[in-house]
Amino acid sequence: MIRIVQWGCGAMGCGMMALTLKKRNLQLVGAIDSRMAIAGRDVGERLESGRKIGVEIRSDAEQVLKETRPDVVLLATSSFTRDVFEPLSLIAEHGADAITIAEEMAAPRVKAPELARRLDELALARGMTILGTGINPGFVLDSLILMLTGVCQEITAIEAARVNDLSPYGQTVMRTQGIGLAPEEFRRGVADGSVDGHIGFAESIAMLSERLNLEIDDVVEEKAPIITSVARETACIKVAPGMVAGCNHTAKGLRKGQPVITLNHPQQILPQLENQHTGDFINISGRPELHLRIEPEIPGGIGTVAIAVNMIPAVLAAAPGLKMMSDMPLPYCLPNLKAI
Amino acid sequence: MIRIVQWGCGAMGCGMMALTLKKRNLQLVGAIDSRMAIAGRDVGERLESGRKIGVEIRSDAEQVLKETRPDVVLLATSSFTRDVFEPLSLIAEHGADAITIAEEMAAPRVKAPELARRLDELALARGMTILGTGINPGFVLDSLILMLTGVCQEITAIEAARVNDLSPYGQTVMRTQGIGLAPEEFRRGVADGSVDGHIGFAESIAMLSERLNLEIDDVVEEKAPIITSVARETACIKVAPGMVAGCNHTAKGLRKGQPVITLNHPQQILPQLENQHTGDFINISGRPELHLRIEPEIPGGIGTVAIAVNMIPAVLAAAPGLKMMSDMPLPYCLPNLKAI
Repeated sequence: MIRIVQWGCGAMGCGMMALTLKKRNLQLVGAIDSRMAIAGRDVGERLESGRKIGVEIRSDAEQVLKETRPDVVLLATSSFTRDVFEPLSLIAEHGADAITIAEEMAAPRVKAPELARRLDELALARGMTILGTGINPGFVLDSLILMLTGVCQEITAIEAARVNDLSPYGQTVMRTQGIGLAPEEFRRGVADGSVDGHIGFAESIAMLSERLNLEIDDVVEEKAPIITSVARETACIKVAPGMVAGCNHTAKGLRKGQPVITLNHPQQILPQLENQHTGDFINISGRPELHLRIEPEIPGGIGTVAIAVNMIPAVLAAAPGLKMMSDMPLPYCLPNLKAI
Repeated sequence: MIRIVQWGCGAMGCGMMALTLKKRNLQLVGAIDSRMAIAGRDVGERLESGRKIGVEIRSDAEQVLKETRPDVVLLATSSFTRDVFEPLSLIAEHGADAITIAEEMAAPRVKAPELARRLDELALARGMTILGTGINPGFVLDSLILMLTGVCQEITAIEAARVNDLSPYGQTVMRTQGIGLAPEEFRRGVADGSVDGHIGFAESIAMLSERLNLEIDDVVEEKAPIITSVARETACIKVAPGMVAGCNHTAKGLRKGQPVITLNHPQQILPQLENQHTGDFINISGRPELHLRIEPEIPGGIGTVAIAVNMIPAVLAAAPGLKMMSDMPLPYCLPNLKAI
């Protein structure tokens, strides 16, 4: 049995705990969350499973790690390397491997090279492995592209898009994507940083460029408002015609000024109301040309939870150090307790 | 520089040599082919490149291995484990890793468990790695499916198809697929083994079942004639209406009598004449459901050559033993000498 601690028991963390409980050879031995409203409850209650499982969500991280001696900790607390640096250090010091879904950790040298260097050093010193993963960055716009290039003799350009529907998400996502704003407010939000768009383009481009030797020397990003011409309404927001229903975020990896990698990720609510079909799309120019479509798109939440849990045995088996998905073996779905 | 010997200088072997010559960090140091018409010539002549490269194709395999001391040998001589067993043994004894595109070697324990055991033993004893790969088996209907399952929380069934066009191929392929036969002749050919269909279904299913713990206990295959209703003609064959234009080959991996994996590979000439579109298609049932399409299909020859060469550094870095693609890291396209 592989001993697992979940650190961060929000929506993603709960998904990971629920999945861990369904998998053969995985044993959830602890759960950490610093939020008052969450700590102190049994995991089963938090998962609304109708039964306690005998694992309490606790806020004293260090004590939990010490008492439960996990093999692997799943960390789902933040998108940013600066925020997960201390938890990851603590995990490594307690002799556990770590898998985090912090978007920046998909390629942490991009935004936080010094923290990445220190994490790598610590992981090597302790013989531990740290991996950043997720659906995107971590899979759709990087690993899956790499996998496809495996059957290519040469690559001249990569264009890929992930078109998704944000309808299931709550207020935080609406705010960071600028949904519900007037177009002018959206543009101000982009300028002042309150409209984030997608976090992960620079990381995906770095992973591709490094692995494929594409010699990308600059990354430019653009965030444009998706202005709706029809009323769009979800459980948490109403958007009138003329207002912003999403953020059309594009990043280009340039080499000597020419785009070599173009990644597009328009995120909006209810794209189907304007006949937009969701999906993941990869187009590789080279020999051969390849055109891949996954329609509808791989669901973000389900996919992120899955890949984080599915990478557990590979992370345990991996050489020590700070790893990216491009360093790892082929992912696969771990067997569930109940056979199909 | 990684020292490469090509063993088998037919169409695929020539593709691999040509690609090796284009890649950074790879050096073609030898070439082996036992055929009188091929041995004795310079590789450059064989590739019709208009210049000699100073590497002669030779038939004395053992001597070539001894003199050139390759790091990796690319073996492209046969589809069957029984035929590549001796070459692979010789390669391992000479201290080189091996990559073979023999279809059965994608999962050699399926058809030749005893030879697979001996190859694994020898590879372990010599500290060498042996990998079977190719576009299919090796990628489309197995590794690529595994990769996709990485973002799945559970899998209940897998259905996949590779629909391709055999028009570029020659007499041998036409004969083994039964193209040009009358339907009755095709059925007799299936019965007497002269119509092969696709080699690799059992291997792809074994790789998936083992990795995903699907507990497949039986594999059933069906080869049906694709009877054309229009005249179809390629450079090497004419097929009249009512005759066989291809082999529609399907394999099912069963668990307790129920299909869990269904793989279909209709191979024919000029499918577009009857409005059939070529492509690679993967449908995964489970959580989530996934529907992937690559249209047109990944070209078989180009893709097989690419994946064999692209796996070279991963095979060099791998632990010793007999490996399948499911044991390997994420493939990717190696950089060419000339930047894009």
